[in-house]
Amino acid sequence: MDVRGVHHVAVAVEDLDAAVETYQRLFGAEVERRGRMEDQGVEAVYLRLGAGRVELVTPLGDDTPVGRFLAKRGPGMHHVAYEVTDLPDTLERIKAAGGSVIDPEPRRGLDGHSVAFVHPESLHGVLAEVVASDG
Amino acid sequence: MDVRGVHHVAVAVEDLDAAVETYQRLFGAEVERRGRMEDQGVEAVYLRLGAGRVELVTPLGDDTPVGRFLAKRGPGMHHVAYEVTDLPDTLERIKAAGGSVIDPEPRRGLDGHSVAFVHPESLHGVLAEVVASDG
Repeated sequence: MDVRGVHHVAVAVEDLDAAVETYQRLFGAEVERRGRMEDQGVEAVYLRLGAGRVELVTPLGDDTPVGRFLAKRGPGMHHVAYEVTDLPDTLERIKAAGGSVIDPEPRRGLDGHSVAFVHPESLHGVLAEVVASDG
Repeated sequence: MDVRGVHHVAVAVEDLDAAVETYQRLFGAEVERRGRMEDQGVEAVYLRLGAGRVELVTPLGDDTPVGRFLAKRGPGMHHVAYEVTDLPDTLERIKAAGGSVIDPEPRRGLDGHSVAFVHPESLHGVLAEVVASDG
């Protein structure tokens, strides 16, 4: 099996700075990386909590997937990302198993790794991301 | 800092068997443990996905926290659990930092470890659980 583990848990927030401060204060989280992903319409921060990683994402505009998510559901858990050793193979296997992969081609995640999203209709309401281990 | 990492990501589902099968089929997940937590009003399964862990939870009745969650929001991500080395110390620190701990005393998680929940109002809409590393 080529899933190595949970790469990150993503949380949609209204105020990125305030959320970073909250995770630092309550959990001693450390900022690993911060940047914009224009193609996803978000600014994002990777936080480390020990060996774990939380991605805080805030929309660059209302008419973005995360902007619409916040308008509909409010801030909260947005997706879970799994690290996999062979992304193309994983995506083929998910599709062969009846899963719906959103991205026709992998895109770049916050740390430059190739990523793709799996539709929540395939996973009982959970948006999932698969992240290539290296590259 | 005493957070060791993400212990599990919890997902609320309508049909536990169907959800287990989905995660096995799409991600090669393996069942680690299954059981009822009457005090939380759920039946739950720990799945392993490599080093990662997903907890699937389904309510034992409509008038339970997860039953009400499903009625209001539908199936989806429910909470994220962090493993900590010293649970009482962590809870004191969270409270001192202004966080709201739901459980007056730790309860038992699916694998018997002590756990407690942190209110989503303290974490930008995310329900969090803290799990003691040992015992």
